[in-house]
Amino acid sequence: MRFELTILGSGSALPTSLRNTTAQVLNVLERFFLIDCGEGCQLQLRKFSFSFLKINRIFISHMHGDHYFGLFGLLSTLNLMGRQQPLYIHGPAELNGILETVLGFKSEYWKYKVHVIPLNFENPAIIFEDKKIKVTSFPLRHSTPVCGFTFEEQPRPRKIDKSSILELNLTIKEINALKEGMDIERNGEIIENRLMTIDPPSPRKYAFMTDTLKCSSAIEIIKNADILYHEATYLHEDLALARKTCHSTAIQAAQIARDANVKKLLLGHYSSRYTDITVIEDEAKTVFSNSISVLDGEIYSVDY
Amino acid sequence: MRFELTILGSGSALPTSLRNTTAQVLNVLERFFLIDCGEGCQLQLRKFSFSFLKINRIFISHMHGDHYFGLFGLLSTLNLMGRQQPLYIHGPAELNGILETVLGFKSEYWKYKVHVIPLNFENPAIIFEDKKIKVTSFPLRHSTPVCGFTFEEQPRPRKIDKSSILELNLTIKEINALKEGMDIERNGEIIENRLMTIDPPSPRKYAFMTDTLKCSSAIEIIKNADILYHEATYLHEDLALARKTCHSTAIQAAQIARDANVKKLLLGHYSSRYTDITVIEDEAKTVFSNSISVLDGEIYSVDY
Repeated sequence: MRFELTILGSGSALPTSLRNTTAQVLNVLERFFLIDCGEGCQLQLRKFSFSFLKINRIFISHMHGDHYFGLFGLLSTLNLMGRQQPLYIHGPAELNGILETVLGFKSEYWKYKVHVIPLNFENPAIIFEDKKIKVTSFPLRHSTPVCGFTFEEQPRPRKIDKSSILELNLTIKEINALKEGMDIERNGEIIENRLMTIDPPSPRKYAFMTDTLKCSSAIEIIKNADILYHEATYLHEDLALARKTCHSTAIQAAQIARDANVKKLLLGHYSSRYTDITVIEDEAKTVFSNSISVLDGEIYSVDY
Repeated sequence: MRFELTILGSGSALPTSLRNTTAQVLNVLERFFLIDCGEGCQLQLRKFSFSFLKINRIFISHMHGDHYFGLFGLLSTLNLMGRQQPLYIHGPAELNGILETVLGFKSEYWKYKVHVIPLNFENPAIIFEDKKIKVTSFPLRHSTPVCGFTFEEQPRPRKIDKSSILELNLTIKEINALKEGMDIERNGEIIENRLMTIDPPSPRKYAFMTDTLKCSSAIEIIKNADILYHEATYLHEDLALARKTCHSTAIQAAQIARDANVKKLLLGHYSSRYTDITVIEDEAKTVFSNSISVLDGEIYSVDY
C-alpha cells in the first residue's frame, strides 16, 4: 500500500534547464494527488510515466504562476484524452474565473466538469476526507495568500491474530469490536482487547509548505509528519532577501522540521542563483540532520 | 548575418516526453522573433541557451493552447528579469484579455508594457516592416481562425565593385544612385549600372504554416521561400482524420512545398500516435525530395 511522493519540479519562479517549477504527485494507496502545477507539469508527468487520467484531485497552494501555470495545458490534455469524471481542484477562489477565461469550459468542446473548491486562508481546515485519507490546509506567510497542506492516512483498525479468531470462534460483531479497541464479553467473562490485538501501523503523514516566511504557527499541524517538504529558496546568508521576498532559508526550514519533530525534511524551491544545491542541504543539516535537497524526478516513499 | 531557425517544440496538442508543443525562434540578423509559444517554451529557450531578454517580437498563430500556453510563464519571467522595453505580440485579438486576466498587467508588480496587435484572419497583411525585414500574415484553414507567417529580408542595395569607386572617384550621390540600380551621367556620358554593379544576395525568406488543412491560397505568398515549415500532423493513410481535425498530411505539406517552389520543407506538429517520425519524412519525400521531419533543438540556417 504505497505512500509515495514524486518531485516533478523543484525550482522556484525562474525555472532552470535542470529544475521545473513546483509540482509534485503524492500517491496515497494508488490515489494520485497533484500538489501545485507549475508550467511543464504535464511534460514531467509524461517523463516520469504517470497516467494523466489517474489524477484524483489537485491542490494549488497560491496564485503565483510558478505554482499553477501548468494547469492550462494539463486540463486541456485531460479533455483531449477523453476525461469525463469531474475534477476537483482545491485552490484560491480566483482560480475558477481564470481557468474559465482561458479554457472556456462552457463550450461544447469541453467534456468534463472542473470544480474549484476555494481554500480557507484564515484558519486550518480539513478540505478533503474519506475512509482512508484526510487532507488539511493551513495558512502560510507570503506576499499573497498561501496554504500549506498535510495528507494523512486515517487511523487503521487494530490487528487481530488470525489464530485467535478460529480458536475462540469469534463472531463478526466481536471481531469488529476488537478492531475498534473494545474488550468483549463471553458468558460473563471479559476478553481483554490488549491480549487479542496488536497496534496497527501508524497513519503516514506528508506535509507541504511553500512559499512562506518561517511560519511557526504551522508546527502543531505538521507535527510528527513522516516527510515535510519545505521551501528553502535561500541560504541563511541571504536572509534579508528571503525576508524581502517572503521566502525561507535552509536554516529556517530545518528549524521548522526540528520543532515539528518530523522524520525527514525535503528541501526545494531553490533560487536559480544557486547552481550547486548541496549547499542548501549542508546548511539545513547543521540544524536537522535528516535533510535532503531534492531534484526533479526523485521519489520518496514512506513504508510502514 | 544570420537567418536561422531553431525548433523549440515540434509536437502537436498532446506533448510527448520527446517533443514539446509548438514554438520556434527565428534569428534574423540578430533580431529574435518567437513564433508560437506552447507550454514549456521558456524551458526550451533556456535549454537551447537563448537570452530571454533578446526576444524582439512574438507571433501567435491561433488560440489553441498548444500554441500559446507558454506565454504566461515566459512573460512572467521577463518581468522577473526586469524587462522594461515594451513587448509586441502579433496574435488573435482575444489574447489581450486572456493575458490581462492571468497576468494582471495593471498591478504595480508588472514592469513592462505588453501590446497585442490583432491579426487579420480575412486577408494577407504586412504586420511588421522595417529597413531589414518584412513580416506578412495570411489566413489558413483550421477549426478556429489561424494565420501563417512569412519573414522576408528587404531587398538589399546592388553591390558596387570597390575598385570602380576609386577609379572613377564616385561621389556619395553617384554611389547611392548606382546602389539603387540607376545609371549615372558624367559629362554627358552615361555610365551603365549593369557595368558597375552586381546583383545583391536574394532576400532570404521563411514561411510558417500550422495548423491547417491543405491551403492552396497560401502558395503565392510563400512562393520561393528558402524554408517552409508546414504541419504534417498525419500520414496520408489518416487523411479522413486529418480532414476531421482540420490538419494536413505529410503528402499535402509536400504538395504545397512543391507547388510553391520552396527550397526546403520542414515537417512538424506530428500527432503523438507516430513514435517514429521518419515515416512522415519518407512520405513527404515521395512528393518533394528536400523534406525533413524536425526535432526539438534542431537549427536550420539559410546562408547567402
